[in-house]
Amino acid sequence: MKFKINKQTLANSLRKVSHVVNAKSPILALNGIFFDVNEKGLTLVGSDTEITIKTNITENISIKKTGKLILPKFVEEIIRKMDDENIEIELISNDLVLFKSNKSEFKINGIDASQFPNIDYSLTGDLIKLNNSDMIDIINETSFAVSTEVLRPQLTGVNFVCENNVITCVATDSFRLARKNIQVNDTKDFNIIIPGKCLSEVNKLLTNNKDNIDIYLDNQKILFNFDDTIIISRLIKGSYPPTANLIPTNFECTLVINKKVIKDALDRANILSINTQNFTVNLEKNVDILSISSNNKEVGSINENLDYINYIGNEIKVSFNSKYVIEALNTFKEDNIKFQFNGKMNPIILEQENNNNLIQLILPVKNPF
Amino acid sequence: MKFKINKQTLANSLRKVSHVVNAKSPILALNGIFFDVNEKGLTLVGSDTEITIKTNITENISIKKTGKLILPKFVEEIIRKMDDENIEIELISNDLVLFKSNKSEFKINGIDASQFPNIDYSLTGDLIKLNNSDMIDIINETSFAVSTEVLRPQLTGVNFVCENNVITCVATDSFRLARKNIQVNDTKDFNIIIPGKCLSEVNKLLTNNKDNIDIYLDNQKILFNFDDTIIISRLIKGSYPPTANLIPTNFECTLVINKKVIKDALDRANILSINTQNFTVNLEKNVDILSISSNNKEVGSINENLDYINYIGNEIKVSFNSKYVIEALNTFKEDNIKFQFNGKMNPIILEQENNNNLIQLILPVKNPF
Repeated sequence: MKFKINKQTLANSLRKVSHVVNAKSPILALNGIFFDVNEKGLTLVGSDTEITIKTNITENISIKKTGKLILPKFVEEIIRKMDDENIEIELISNDLVLFKSNKSEFKINGIDASQFPNIDYSLTGDLIKLNNSDMIDIINETSFAVSTEVLRPQLTGVNFVCENNVITCVATDSFRLARKNIQVNDTKDFNIIIPGKCLSEVNKLLTNNKDNIDIYLDNQKILFNFDDTIIISRLIKGSYPPTANLIPTNFECTLVINKKVIKDALDRANILSINTQNFTVNLEKNVDILSISSNNKEVGSINENLDYINYIGNEIKVSFNSKYVIEALNTFKEDNIKFQFNGKMNPIILEQENNNNLIQLILPVKNPF
Repeated sequence: MKFKINKQTLANSLRKVSHVVNAKSPILALNGIFFDVNEKGLTLVGSDTEITIKTNITENISIKKTGKLILPKFVEEIIRKMDDENIEIELISNDLVLFKSNKSEFKINGIDASQFPNIDYSLTGDLIKLNNSDMIDIINETSFAVSTEVLRPQLTGVNFVCENNVITCVATDSFRLARKNIQVNDTKDFNIIIPGKCLSEVNKLLTNNKDNIDIYLDNQKILFNFDDTIIISRLIKGSYPPTANLIPTNFECTLVINKKVIKDALDRANILSINTQNFTVNLEKNVDILSISSNNKEVGSINENLDYINYIGNEIKVSFNSKYVIEALNTFKEDNIKFQFNGKMNPIILEQENNNNLIQLILPVKNPF
């Protein structure tokens, strides 16, 4: 293994693969990054066994001798801090690799390439094409709501269901639920659960532009292919709980309000949650007054009247976890948001005023009024 | 207690006093901020018993009724997040205080003012006047070197000694030492130890301008007076160990080098300290070559040749903790730094090329060559 490479090119690609690498994994080979120097260029792979990221470098590199080796994760930091434009990298004995710039020489111990797990990168299975920007929207609008509770593994992922060329993406932790619909072309039906962690990695590396991301599905795994990068993840086994029947379509009361107005008020009410895990906030519509209030016996209370755009229906008093409402509000791009209620113990549905492709559901908490 | 105040004015002053307040102190009154509304305006005090910060507001405030109360630390967050230009604050019953803006009302439980410790703010004792910018320099150039070892409390402070109108400030953790000299006018002699934590608070609140800071000294405490603010701290008892004899004045070898060149090289060498507490780096001058090297059996090695400006003396090999050298280099404003050596086990002295008011001493470590 011997090659010369542009420092910035290598640093960028190492950054892509290195953050899934757990430098404290008990499997020594997985502490490192797999370097495969071949006739076409350099392939880098990082893996935590559940998620694998592979990226190819074919430009700004000159190959003198091919070879494979696992190098420790901190080579990313070494490369980033070297101060030359180009770096020479060479296997000099056994598993010892020399990194050479104009004035510095690092010698780093690697691990034999045969220790790295065998991973199948073949582009097989059903193909789904999505715009990068649609993929990023789906992830930002749903994956925050997945559960962290490993006892119900299905809820730690986002359920993607395709029927009649509409993909419905649902995430829930059983206290709140996010649902996004998106139209696609000529796509086979499927029903899968993608781990939230995998979607978060895709989000980090995907560029928000007009390019497409290719997604390959087989029974057990999913493969994302974009730019020079492949991300592979296992799928979560089992069936996702049915959720369609949880989402009401008729409502007793509807409030339309500016997103910033209600977010700022909830933010202030949250101050009283100091020293507690209790983010309960009350929303009350009474004659012409819409108010937010919160109460913490030890600390004090807040009451605030809010300007709103429109309200239809009877008076209502409802209590909810303000953290969930703030996170739901953050997924919307429009300025004005519709809150829809059916009494004080039924799900609250949040939508944008002019677009119902995205729904955020929040379960109220027991009303302390 | 009843007054109306500009929100930003109050937020700024609360920020000044609140960061010494420990909201988890076992003494309930010290969890909060002391509000004293008097004819002249509002006085705020925060204290952790060792350090007390007091600040006065006399503008942008209209007093309707005087009074005193302790309010919890989180009122700072409430005020910061309220969205009106002015806020009305009123004691409405017992210790319950109402914060009122256009639309929001917070009611917060306070604590009776009599619970707050009695603190003497009188401006008595010997007066020392320093430029704000000199005070900031002293703190930045010395206090990083204080010890965190409570078993030797004297070393957790900076020793300020005034003799013949020169103040010498020394900090050491026994592995490295920082010493700064500064000329003053007509100042009585003194020899005190100021807690490092107190200096860090002064540094946070002092503005780097041409104003002066007044420092009042008595036997047990120090008082800093600047802008509308007073910081009071106990002094550390006991004698500071003599240090003058530790600092050599003649040297076998002198190296002059650009600060950035050596800092960047040490920064790279540090990468190899991964998974260890060992920041040992070797510096070697050999015929015409100056090199930095470091070695970590498990990880690998680095060797780097450095450009330098000037070298006088014999060959040398010396090993040191690179973290200490980097922190020492950060205190210098000039670009070129003088490293002075007396063999491989004697103190290394760092100075600026054109100014010896500031000296940084570093003890070498046992040479692994």
